[in-house]
Amino acid sequence: MRSYVDNEGGSPYHAAMISKETIRVALVGCGTVGGATAELLLRDREIIARRSGVQVEVAAIVDRDFDRARALNLPEELYTSDLDAVLADPAVDLVVELVGGLEFARTLIIRALDAGKHVVTANKALLAHHGRELFGHARARGLTIGFEASCGGGIPVIRAIIDGLLANEIDAIYGVVNGTCNYILTEMIREGKSYQESLAEAQRIGLAEADPSLDVEGQDSAHKIAIMSALAFGTNVDFAAIPVEGVNNLDSRDVAFGQDLGYVVKLLALAQRVETGVLIRVHPAFISREHPLAWVSGPFNAVSIYGHTVGHTLYYGRGAGGEATASAVASDVIAIALGTMPALFSHTGYWPDLNTGDPQLPPGEAVSRFYLRIMVADRPGVLARIGRILADHDISVASLRQNEQALGSERIPLVITTHTCQEQQLRTAVTLIDGLDTTGEATVVLPIIEEHPERIG
Amino acid sequence: MRSYVDNEGGSPYHAAMISKETIRVALVGCGTVGGATAELLLRDREIIARRSGVQVEVAAIVDRDFDRARALNLPEELYTSDLDAVLADPAVDLVVELVGGLEFARTLIIRALDAGKHVVTANKALLAHHGRELFGHARARGLTIGFEASCGGGIPVIRAIIDGLLANEIDAIYGVVNGTCNYILTEMIREGKSYQESLAEAQRIGLAEADPSLDVEGQDSAHKIAIMSALAFGTNVDFAAIPVEGVNNLDSRDVAFGQDLGYVVKLLALAQRVETGVLIRVHPAFISREHPLAWVSGPFNAVSIYGHTVGHTLYYGRGAGGEATASAVASDVIAIALGTMPALFSHTGYWPDLNTGDPQLPPGEAVSRFYLRIMVADRPGVLARIGRILADHDISVASLRQNEQALGSERIPLVITTHTCQEQQLRTAVTLIDGLDTTGEATVVLPIIEEHPERIG
Repeated sequence: MRSYVDNEGGSPYHAAMISKETIRVALVGCGTVGGATAELLLRDREIIARRSGVQVEVAAIVDRDFDRARALNLPEELYTSDLDAVLADPAVDLVVELVGGLEFARTLIIRALDAGKHVVTANKALLAHHGRELFGHARARGLTIGFEASCGGGIPVIRAIIDGLLANEIDAIYGVVNGTCNYILTEMIREGKSYQESLAEAQRIGLAEADPSLDVEGQDSAHKIAIMSALAFGTNVDFAAIPVEGVNNLDSRDVAFGQDLGYVVKLLALAQRVETGVLIRVHPAFISREHPLAWVSGPFNAVSIYGHTVGHTLYYGRGAGGEATASAVASDVIAIALGTMPALFSHTGYWPDLNTGDPQLPPGEAVSRFYLRIMVADRPGVLARIGRILADHDISVASLRQNEQALGSERIPLVITTHTCQEQQLRTAVTLIDGLDTTGEATVVLPIIEEHPERIG
Repeated sequence: MRSYVDNEGGSPYHAAMISKETIRVALVGCGTVGGATAELLLRDREIIARRSGVQVEVAAIVDRDFDRARALNLPEELYTSDLDAVLADPAVDLVVELVGGLEFARTLIIRALDAGKHVVTANKALLAHHGRELFGHARARGLTIGFEASCGGGIPVIRAIIDGLLANEIDAIYGVVNGTCNYILTEMIREGKSYQESLAEAQRIGLAEADPSLDVEGQDSAHKIAIMSALAFGTNVDFAAIPVEGVNNLDSRDVAFGQDLGYVVKLLALAQRVETGVLIRVHPAFISREHPLAWVSGPFNAVSIYGHTVGHTLYYGRGAGGEATASAVASDVIAIALGTMPALFSHTGYWPDLNTGDPQLPPGEAVSRFYLRIMVADRPGVLARIGRILADHDISVASLRQNEQALGSERIPLVITTHTCQEQQLRTAVTLIDGLDTTGEATVVLPIIEEHPERIG
């Protein structure tokens, strides 16, 4: 490293930065996040300039219709549907992609990079599926893709992985990264509502889409953990191979049984490094009331990141919503103008296009404790048969609870928590248990996630 | 802004960075943090290089004795007591100051800067007292001071303020930033212990110093909120003007009464922007069990930062300890090598040496709810007299509780919570109440801190 002082009061780096104090941005897509981003960049231009030293100029708002832009009183002279002209404009430094979806967004980003523009996107699905291609395309052109807004909305969690914790080998990431699911679970836990009632309430207040499947089935959480895993572990993530289970089949009985046992149910997006590789998965799980993720309620998100020397760190905030997400989008625009994001992108080690790191392991290799609710007939020998199957698969019972049979019910819930065992073994045992003539509906299996061990002393 | 693509695949920025992929570091001070930092940089050199792209070389470990260095098996050839020679060595790019204290550390940093070295420090007291001078000295020389480790140990919270939330006007910071105090309070809350018993336990397990005054009297928390306030609000902080109260006078009765009312007691370091300026203070306070800071237990720290567009964000982790702090020190070394910290330091707006922003307000202007425990004689008219004093000062009672007098006790606790009022008014009223012949020992006053309102909708 050359000593900065050689340059008599300004490093070569500083000199290079001075020409970039104004950045001209085209926003493509003016929906919830696009509208909020335009509003933030235009309305709070002075605040941003004062804080960051960067003048962000909005050069164009590109969309097909401008109802939302008009509703927000965004200036008409910026509206355009002529994307070609915007991409051809040499005065545009950076394209913000907020259209969502896969194919149009992918083509847009490639065209923007080909036209020499940096890109900022909040599109988690796109990066989870095509991150490798897009980052490679940017790198080949000396350009940068900012994507803080893709994971955890306004929470600067990408920066924690690629900057703040750079001196750490990341051991694990535990995320509560979908506000819709977390709101629904909070309603189920606190109000004792059913999944359907809670979903309806989330839809009523605008926290769930009319078609909520991407959220409630867990895909959105999977996109986020795929992106974070690539950055944290250097794993070349195969999105299709991530086992994903959502909250949409969760029964309020299990929420209540879990509470009795001292647990809170959360939709967890998990990634952890084990000896042979990296395990990535999304599922509802029980977590101890003592774990900080258990406290994350309503629409808020949080991500626990465990580093080998820092131990447990956690990042919390609004994981969705136009304004919070706009905060992250704008921070990327600024970081590209300042050169900080380009420096990280070009020098640090783990990016989807470079990754050849630890392999992603098949889901069955996960090891954890489990909660089982088995619906059994109240007949002699039932317990013995279930106990035998569990023992045959090396599964040791930590607690067991069976209440007296309620009048008129044919099956009663037998709630078991296990000690640590291999998921594959457990699934095999459950298949056998569900094949017994004394078992009713399919057994409910929920992992119990312990606090991840810190490596520090 | 020039388009990066003009440079055919590499921006001028990237070109400038390439010569800095190795950084040579002298560590001054080999105590708990210094030792852990040396160990991290030496032992995990490959992990750091792979993650960050930066080769960090330890050029020297400077101290007067090397007992700790030897205990950690740090290589003898790096030991030196010749600070002059280290500072004169042109091969040293950066000096890490981990000696602590004020005067020696201040002189060391000025000398290092004069010798053309960047500086990284974990010294919160030094920055709180002399930050303005030191940052100005660095800026005049085109150098950078990294100080992530000064606030919140391993938590990358400085980066959140100066980078992640750059598009936000910061409205408030609520911090639980002293692990010793938080451990003591957690013991008092969970185990019902007294302050003295809890302190003794903290000392026994190495979480409190033999002389714990800097921690338990709140000065350490004040150092941290002073540093964060300068960065967040642009306020030229007068450290001596920050009102500071520690946990050392906290009575376990108040901890218990607060719990009955639904609150958790925390030592809070608070800073908030109000219309006329910025209020900064440190005191034990009650916070609702629903606030995420209430969950932060044991030695962990957390900082809530409220941004005008992101809303509430929170950063959690180990606020002390050698290894966690070393993570932050190392991240600054890397950030200086990558040029990201220099870019932020030279371009963004709020730094102690540049600040002329909103004024720091006198403490009496704080407005909040309050908890009062008044020790009263069980005589007719007592309540009326206290009620009259409160009313005369525009203080409205939210709740009131007085249990029956226990046999043999002369005074009984009257526990009052107020609605929002001005602190100055409340203090005046309490002085009058304490002057009544029916009041025993001095009234206990603890603020009740509500969730800070988010500006977003």
